[in-house]
Amino acid sequence: MAWPKSVDIREEGPREGFQFEKGHIPTVAKVALIDALSETGLRHIQAVSFVNPKRVPGWADAEAVVAAMRRKEGVHYTGLWLNLRGFQRALATGRLDLEGSLGLTASEAFAARNIQRTRAEDIAEQRALMQAYAAAGVPVTRVSVMAAFGCNYMGEVPAAEVMECVRILLDMAAEAGAARPLISLADTMAWANPADIKRLVGAVQDAWPENPIALHLHDTRGLAIADALAGLEMGVRVFDSAVAGLGGCPFAKHAGAAGNICTEDLVFLCHELGIETGVDLERLGEVGRLAEEVVGHKLPGKLKDAGGLAAMRRQAAAA
Amino acid sequence: MAWPKSVDIREEGPREGFQFEKGHIPTVAKVALIDALSETGLRHIQAVSFVNPKRVPGWADAEAVVAAMRRKEGVHYTGLWLNLRGFQRALATGRLDLEGSLGLTASEAFAARNIQRTRAEDIAEQRALMQAYAAAGVPVTRVSVMAAFGCNYMGEVPAAEVMECVRILLDMAAEAGAARPLISLADTMAWANPADIKRLVGAVQDAWPENPIALHLHDTRGLAIADALAGLEMGVRVFDSAVAGLGGCPFAKHAGAAGNICTEDLVFLCHELGIETGVDLERLGEVGRLAEEVVGHKLPGKLKDAGGLAAMRRQAAAA
Repeated sequence: MAWPKSVDIREEGPREGFQFEKGHIPTVAKVALIDALSETGLRHIQAVSFVNPKRVPGWADAEAVVAAMRRKEGVHYTGLWLNLRGFQRALATGRLDLEGSLGLTASEAFAARNIQRTRAEDIAEQRALMQAYAAAGVPVTRVSVMAAFGCNYMGEVPAAEVMECVRILLDMAAEAGAARPLISLADTMAWANPADIKRLVGAVQDAWPENPIALHLHDTRGLAIADALAGLEMGVRVFDSAVAGLGGCPFAKHAGAAGNICTEDLVFLCHELGIETGVDLERLGEVGRLAEEVVGHKLPGKLKDAGGLAAMRRQAAAA
Repeated sequence: MAWPKSVDIREEGPREGFQFEKGHIPTVAKVALIDALSETGLRHIQAVSFVNPKRVPGWADAEAVVAAMRRKEGVHYTGLWLNLRGFQRALATGRLDLEGSLGLTASEAFAARNIQRTRAEDIAEQRALMQAYAAAGVPVTRVSVMAAFGCNYMGEVPAAEVMECVRILLDMAAEAGAARPLISLADTMAWANPADIKRLVGAVQDAWPENPIALHLHDTRGLAIADALAGLEMGVRVFDSAVAGLGGCPFAKHAGAAGNICTEDLVFLCHELGIETGVDLERLGEVGRLAEEVVGHKLPGKLKDAGGLAAMRRQAAAA
């Protein structure tokens, strides 16, 4: 199969990373990372998370971060929220490019732990969000299914369960007047393998051929880049990722490495395959190293340590 | 394309790792790692390296390691050598399952630095090895091309150069009476991407359809598992790998992470795709953590930290 010509990278390193890191990270350091990401050619940065600071203390300063970050022309800055209150906080900043997102968790066992909701409660919350988006003039552009490939609490997640979540969300999106929202499939607990990716992406494409698909991958078990390859082979053109491989869900019952797929490693894969991303890989590698300074420890991404091949090719050509 | 039903993992963690690690590692610790690997179901372990101890001090104790390691029934224990003298040292141990291997480096620029030989000298050395194998009754079973996907000194390595190396080696192997030796393609400096893998493996399969192919991958730039997936999709059934992602070539001009593809992450990929390896993944994860104790620092493999999915599936089923 032919790869897509270009892919759209949604950087989530700040949001994912600072929800997950244990130690205190100063607001100014968070802002420095976001500002550095703004200079790499990335067009979408999920900068902050408006979640309950009692449960996720790393994002107690979300408003302060948004107030201080430098907005660069042409870059979309978004935030994450899981409920109405979070959306209202995001809206109140007045400095974010809010994207109306509706989401459900395919595993009810995980939803109970991560967001303390039953499926019915989760649907009601999404409906409330949908109304709030309409009131605020925020269009619905993305529907997301979390735990779409498996769950540490429930085990395998049947594809039918995922498809049902997508169907509910797309019905809601249609009600809100959204034409063809992005369908995001999140491997929240790193259960996916490349065959799963092809099966589920294929099923979603068959059912909703007009909607673009996004993959949100975690590298907890080392397969994220292979899963991304499988996604590219299926024509997926939107990927969430995190600089240096920051992040992880704090409620996913994981020991050890739990980060998202690393943005610069993914960008490297794309560029080597001839797929455009608009990202300056050398500059992004520098930001990967900055991310390590900000969190105060090594992060799992490889490219930031090894460097890409562009410099090697230049040297070899000059030799 | 259908995956292979089973793959053959050639564990090279001890050999790769101890040539690469900076600090002194006691012989007894090296032996402990090899002995632990012997209990995982792995059938091939490249335990030691017979290289010049002035250039690779980490393997000055190769003979002592071989003398002390416990040989387990059904496991093949091999060693690496790059010249006649190394082969004679391996032979003299009397405790290894010697495999006659002939190798060339596709990049002459890299060969000059790694083994200080021109192509002609390298061919002469392989011819001398071939004669020594014959004299010792060691059959030729593998021909290897190093730097088959690119080189930090020369840049892109043309496929024609790799094919020419394979042709020279197969002619030599035929002269030595080898029927269909394994053709090993090594991405010594981590230049490969999945498209390269498919192109080169495809070209080699087209030219020599009867010979099995092995891939030797490095994860320096984070693509090893995606490259392995591409190999599996091409029907490759033999992979070199290193427990916990140990290793790297000491002369490959790399900063930072330079290890081989991680055995347990590769085994996890295979098992999740329904491909048999004969390896006990949970036990191998423990050996991955032992490897970290032995070298005294974190190693890049993911599965050893996160655990596989078998335990998660059991827990979920019991819940």
